[in-house]
Amino acid sequence: MPPFNPLVQKLAPPPVPSVFAWGRSYDGSRGPLIDLSQAVPGYPPHPKMLELLKEMAGSTAYCGYGAIEGESHLRRVYAEHVRDVYGADIDSQNIHVTSGCNEAFISAATAVAGAGETVLMTNPFYFNHETTLAMMGVTIKTVDCAADDGFLPRVDAVAAAITPDVRALALVSPNNPTGAVYPADLLREIFEVCREKDIWLILDETYRDFLPDPGRSPHGLFDEDEWEDRLICLYSFSKSFCIPGHRLGAITAGAKAVEQIAKIMDNIQICAPRAAQAAVAQAMPMLADWREGNRQEIVRRAKALRMVIAQVPAWRIDAVGAYFAFVRHPFPSLNSAEVAERMAKQAGVICIPGMYFGPGQEQYLRFAFANADVPTIERLAERLENFAAE
Amino acid sequence: MPPFNPLVQKLAPPPVPSVFAWGRSYDGSRGPLIDLSQAVPGYPPHPKMLELLKEMAGSTAYCGYGAIEGESHLRRVYAEHVRDVYGADIDSQNIHVTSGCNEAFISAATAVAGAGETVLMTNPFYFNHETTLAMMGVTIKTVDCAADDGFLPRVDAVAAAITPDVRALALVSPNNPTGAVYPADLLREIFEVCREKDIWLILDETYRDFLPDPGRSPHGLFDEDEWEDRLICLYSFSKSFCIPGHRLGAITAGAKAVEQIAKIMDNIQICAPRAAQAAVAQAMPMLADWREGNRQEIVRRAKALRMVIAQVPAWRIDAVGAYFAFVRHPFPSLNSAEVAERMAKQAGVICIPGMYFGPGQEQYLRFAFANADVPTIERLAERLENFAAE
Ligand SMILES: Cc1ncc(COP(=O)(O)O)c(C=O)c1O
Ligand SMILES: Cc1ncc(COP(=O)(O)O)c(C=O)c1O
Repeated sequence: MPPFNPLVQKLAPPPVPSVFAWGRSYDGSRGPLIDLSQAVPGYPPHPKMLELLKEMAGSTAYCGYGAIEGESHLRRVYAEHVRDVYGADIDSQNIHVTSGCNEAFISAATAVAGAGETVLMTNPFYFNHETTLAMMGVTIKTVDCAADDGFLPRVDAVAAAITPDVRALALVSPNNPTGAVYPADLLREIFEVCREKDIWLILDETYRDFLPDPGRSPHGLFDEDEWEDRLICLYSFSKSFCIPGHRLGAITAGAKAVEQIAKIMDNIQICAPRAAQAAVAQAMPMLADWREGNRQEIVRRAKALRMVIAQVPAWRIDAVGAYFAFVRHPFPSLNSAEVAERMAKQAGVICIPGMYFGPGQEQYLRFAFANADVPTIERLAERLENFAAE
Repeated sequence: MPPFNPLVQKLAPPPVPSVFAWGRSYDGSRGPLIDLSQAVPGYPPHPKMLELLKEMAGSTAYCGYGAIEGESHLRRVYAEHVRDVYGADIDSQNIHVTSGCNEAFISAATAVAGAGETVLMTNPFYFNHETTLAMMGVTIKTVDCAADDGFLPRVDAVAAAITPDVRALALVSPNNPTGAVYPADLLREIFEVCREKDIWLILDETYRDFLPDPGRSPHGLFDEDEWEDRLICLYSFSKSFCIPGHRLGAITAGAKAVEQIAKIMDNIQICAPRAAQAAVAQAMPMLADWREGNRQEIVRRAKALRMVIAQVPAWRIDAVGAYFAFVRHPFPSLNSAEVAERMAKQAGVICIPGMYFGPGQEQYLRFAFANADVPTIERLAERLENFAAE
C-alpha cells in the first residue's frame, strides 16, 4: 500500500465522535445524558429560518453554480450587519461567504501561509485550527495563556513570540475552549504588535453574538488605519442561527485578501451552498430580536453554571464566557481525557477534555454549557458531587 | 502589507468569471448568447428533487452538525449505486460524502500528497486540479495526451513519468476538458502500472452518468485485488442531479483512505450540507429513469455538435464525449484565449480557451455542449461560419 500523506496520517482522529462514543456507553443510571460536548445551541432554529431554508431550497434559482465570493444579497446584508456591530465602514467587497467557519479558517490561513511557514496561535487553542495548520504543513508556534490571566494572552508574550518566520497570528474571541472574551483594548494592543511586526491577524469570532455586553462593539480593529492590509475576521452562522448542518460562515477582510481567498475557495468547493445563503440573507435582519433573546438565555446559562460549580467546592471555573467554561477538575492524578471518559460513562455528562486543546491542559474540561438549558445545568451539581473519578 | 502566500498569489484568478465577463460585452447582434462555458446541465432539476430539497431543508432533523463522513442514508444508497454501476463489492464504509467534487479532489489529494511531494496529471487537465495542487505546494508533473491518440494518455508514457517522487496519478474520465472516455482496458493497464510503481490512482468520474454506452461498467478497477489500497474514485452530484448550487459530491475508496479523508474533511468543513444529502439519498433511486433520459439527451447533443462542426470545414472536433468537445479552431495566428474572447464578443458564443487547461492547447476551445439544447447547438453553425477572428 502506498503511503498516506504523513501530515494527515499523524493527525489524531476527530475528537467529537470519540467523545460521543463515551456517552453511548453510559447506562442511564444517573438520569438522561447531559451533553456539554460539541458547541451547538440547545434550542432549535426559528420557524421563520426553517421556512426560508425550505423556500430557497425548493427554488430553481439556487440550483446552479453561484458566485465564488457568495450570494451578493448575503454579502450586502452581512456587510451591513458588520457595519452595525462594529460601527465601521464595511462593504460587500470585504465579505467572502464560506461553508462554515472551519472553511473560513483554512481559506484565511492558506491565503497568508504555506507549508514551511509559521503561524502563531494561543495555547489552549481550538483543535481544528491546530489540525488544519498541521495538515497544511504549516509550522505552529503557541503563546501560553495562563489561568491567572483569565486565559488571555499577554501582549509582551505575543510580541516575543513573533519571530521573523511568523506570518500570522490566529486568535479566537470569545475563546474556544476557554470562553475568555478578549477585551477591545487587548485586541488593539495585539493588533499594534502585528502591525509593527508586519504580520496578519486572523481573528475567529464564531461566538461574537453571545457576548455578555451586546451594546459595546467587540473591538475597534476595523477602524484602525490600513486594517484591510493585516486583519482577517471569521464568523459562523452555525451557532447564531442554529444551522450548523447547513454549513455557512463568512470572512471579513480587505478586498485584496478577498481576491486571494476567492482563488482558494474556488479550489476547495467553488461556492458555499446557495439556498442557505439566500435564506440567511433574509433571516438576518428579521431575526435580530430572536438572536438577542438567545444571547440573554446563554448568559443565564453561564450564570447557572457558575452557581452550580460554586456548590461543588472541589471543582473550579477558571474562565467562562459566551459558549464555554474551562473547568478545573479535582482529580490531580488523572488527566482530562481519563476524567472526561469516566464522567461520561459513570455520571452521564459528556464534555471535551482540556488536553484536546493543547499541551498542559490535563487538569481542565471544556463545558459547552450553551448546549444545555438552565434546569439541565442545575442537575449537573448532583452529578459532579457524586462523581468520584479516582 | 504583509505578504500573501506566494503559492496562492501566483494562481491566476478563477477562469469562469472572466469568460462570463466576455459574454457580457456581447451586443446581441447575432441573436441570444450561446453559453458553452461552464459545465452545467442546460435543464432544470426534476420537480421531485426540488420537493425533496425543500422538505429536508425545512426539517429540524438536518440543522445540527452531522457525521463527518456523510449521512448514513446517503452513504448506503450511494454505495448501492456504485455496486450496481460497477458490479462491484462496495460498502457504506467505502463512501465519504463531500461538498462537491472539487472538495472530493482536494481531500483525496491531501490524503496522499503533501507539499513538496509530486502528483502526476495529464495535459490537458481540469484546471482546478492543477490550481489545487499548486496551492497545496504539491509538485505537478504531466503526461501529454495527443490529439492523434484521441487525447488518451499512453500507458508507456504514464509508466515513464512515474519517477520515485510521484505519490499519485490523477485522471479524469470522461475527461474534462476533452470529453475523451477512457476505455476500461486502458484504465486497467494504467492501474497495473500504479500497482507496480506503488502509487495511488485518483480517478475523477464527475461525468460518469453521461457515458454513451450505459450498459457497460465504466471500468473494472473495483474488482482488482487490493483496489482499496491504491484507488480513490471521485463523483459529483452536481451534473447528474442538476444541483451544483447545493454542493454535493462523493468519494469511493478503501475504508483506511476514508478514515484519513475524514480527518481532512473535519478540518475543511466538518461535514457536507446535510439537507441536500438527505434529499439526494431519497432521489437517487427515484430518479434513475429521469437520469437515463438526460443521458440520452446529452448523447443527442453530442451528435448535433458533431454535425454542426462537420458543416464548418475549417473547424475540427479532436475529441468529444460525455459533456465536452475539444474543438480545434481555424486561426493559427491566434491563441485560444484570443479566439474565445473574440468569439464571445463578436459571435455571442462563450466557451473556455484550451490554454486554460494546460500548455500547448492554444489551438483548442472547450465546448461544454451539454449546456445547450439541440436547436441552440444547431444555431452554432451559422455563428461559427460567419466568425472571422483574424
Ligand atoms: C472557534 C471556532 N471556529 C470555527 C468553528 C466552526 O464552525 P462552523 O460550524 O461554522 O464551521 C467552531 C465550531 O465549533 C469554533 O468553535
Ligand atoms: C472533472 C471535474 N471534477 C470536479 C468538478 C467539480 O464539481 P462539483 O460541482 O461537484 O464541485 C468539475 C466541475 O466542473 C469537473 O469538471
